[in-house]
Amino acid sequence: MENGHTGKHRVAVIGSGNWGSVASRLLASNTAKLPSFHDEVRMWVFEETLPTGEKLSESINQAHENCKYLPGIKLGTNVIADPDLESAVKDADMLVFVTPHQFVEGICKKLVGKLRPGVEAISLIKGMEIAVEKFSEATIGYREDKEAANRWAKLFTTPYFLVSVVEDIEGVELCGTLKNVVAIAAGFVDGLDMGNNTKAAIMRIGLREMRAFSKLLFPSVRDNTFFESCGVADLITTCLGGRNRRVAEAFARNGGKRSFDELEAEMLHGQKLQGVSTAREVYEVLTYHGWQELFPLLSTVHEICIGQLPPTSIVEYRLAEGQS
Amino acid sequence: MENGHTGKHRVAVIGSGNWGSVASRLLASNTAKLPSFHDEVRMWVFEETLPTGEKLSESINQAHENCKYLPGIKLGTNVIADPDLESAVKDADMLVFVTPHQFVEGICKKLVGKLRPGVEAISLIKGMEIAVEKFSEATIGYREDKEAANRWAKLFTTPYFLVSVVEDIEGVELCGTLKNVVAIAAGFVDGLDMGNNTKAAIMRIGLREMRAFSKLLFPSVRDNTFFESCGVADLITTCLGGRNRRVAEAFARNGGKRSFDELEAEMLHGQKLQGVSTAREVYEVLTYHGWQELFPLLSTVHEICIGQLPPTSIVEYRLAEGQS
Repeated sequence: MENGHTGKHRVAVIGSGNWGSVASRLLASNTAKLPSFHDEVRMWVFEETLPTGEKLSESINQAHENCKYLPGIKLGTNVIADPDLESAVKDADMLVFVTPHQFVEGICKKLVGKLRPGVEAISLIKGMEIAVEKFSEATIGYREDKEAANRWAKLFTTPYFLVSVVEDIEGVELCGTLKNVVAIAAGFVDGLDMGNNTKAAIMRIGLREMRAFSKLLFPSVRDNTFFESCGVADLITTCLGGRNRRVAEAFARNGGKRSFDELEAEMLHGQKLQGVSTAREVYEVLTYHGWQELFPLLSTVHEICIGQLPPTSIVEYRLAEGQS
Repeated sequence: MENGHTGKHRVAVIGSGNWGSVASRLLASNTAKLPSFHDEVRMWVFEETLPTGEKLSESINQAHENCKYLPGIKLGTNVIADPDLESAVKDADMLVFVTPHQFVEGICKKLVGKLRPGVEAISLIKGMEIAVEKFSEATIGYREDKEAANRWAKLFTTPYFLVSVVEDIEGVELCGTLKNVVAIAAGFVDGLDMGNNTKAAIMRIGLREMRAFSKLLFPSVRDNTFFESCGVADLITTCLGGRNRRVAEAFARNGGKRSFDELEAEMLHGQKLQGVSTAREVYEVLTYHGWQELFPLLSTVHEICIGQLPPTSIVEYRLAEGQS
């Protein structure tokens, strides 16, 4: 996967929101230093017109800063904003997706036939958040090609951002999704004022159910993945902060009398919580296979979300035998 | 291990502080319900005279409440306080130790020759806290005798307190000890105001080092133990609350300029933090084996505690290769 022209890898970032801008900045600082990468990081910008009348992409290229989504932070002169998707990716052999997840499919369709042969892509859409210049970490899941995985890890690693690779795509993805359901449970515990001991117990049981559920769905999933940052660390972050936790806390404080729809409208301006929809999807899988009793926490979260059980039920189930 | 006289197991609790009283209350509520246990729970009280002139043991037996260490909470009429150690244990075949750890050795010496044959004992001294009537959980480590372990689990389990058993005494013990070192690291992160993301990363790396260190010391230690409540859940609890975390936070806020000795004197009335002394003991083991580089977090905590490194170093180390 060498770039034929210069022998150096070229990186393009698809997305320029807050998180896309943070990623571009981090990548650009690394590509400037690492000899195996071309300095320039091309960032596809979903074009918009700023209140000043200026185009967002032009503003970024002039100020080297995304004044709308990451104001006050220099991206690096080697980040080039490009409002034309096709042009943004045409020379790249490493693509970084950082868009809202509902746009991925549409973007991918537009990319068909426009990419270089052998191009690789990574998605940052779920499973991690980078705190700017604060120590944090992430996990890259890969299948078979460890060399490519290590190249991606090298591209992202900084002294304050540790990146590890695990040969377990499904495990990494499921961690990123299921943790949001556990965060809902943690939010219920917060709303019931049950304290850290109870919350830690719920998080631990949640982690165990995440692991057991993932392994039932994909026997290839590895225990070790849950010790990676995508597992226990992201779970902790999401259960301490995060909007799934926050809205679920409000839900429990209201004794379940105000629906998630209502609270989402009020607290998230109508955006929907991922944990609530994931809980429903998981519940469908559990029901289909007759597995509800094996996953009391995951099941209970959904039943509370839809008003079938009160929020206090989150600490009232018995553990299934053999599940400890 | 049947009690010859009645065929029922008899429980004695060694200790009557806050935690000993909570344990006695929980056990008494279970022994009253479970047919395989004698109702009475005998609680050895380190006798003291109350300001009223009354003896603590007499007060407990009269009011069924430990007015000094657990005021306002009924222990149950089947909890019998006994200030005489020998008399408290003489009929028991299940002993529950809940004293400060420095008294255990002296107590055990006094018990030699005074116990029934086949008596079993459990220590609650490290590794868990029971929140009164709030949902929480605990892990019992055992070696070989699963039947005995399950009997203990039955004795402790309530709808709000889940108890699991694992055949890994060393793993459970080391979790209980090493988590305090990680809590010191988490406290440093809090004191540096680095946020939940960083804190979660540090907790995750701490859990990984706990596991790797335990397995190097005792190859019998199992990965799974770290998914039990004694592992990830107790680690979370200790890193969110707990005095190791709290004093370490103060240490970092003062930029390491006030020593732990000084802060312990001020914040803990001279009691010492377990995490600080455990960090030193762990460091001695690491130095002896030349393992420091394999355990950057555990090593760094000690070096910060003794003033050799500034608190900010907690997020500045590189991970050892192959440790991710």
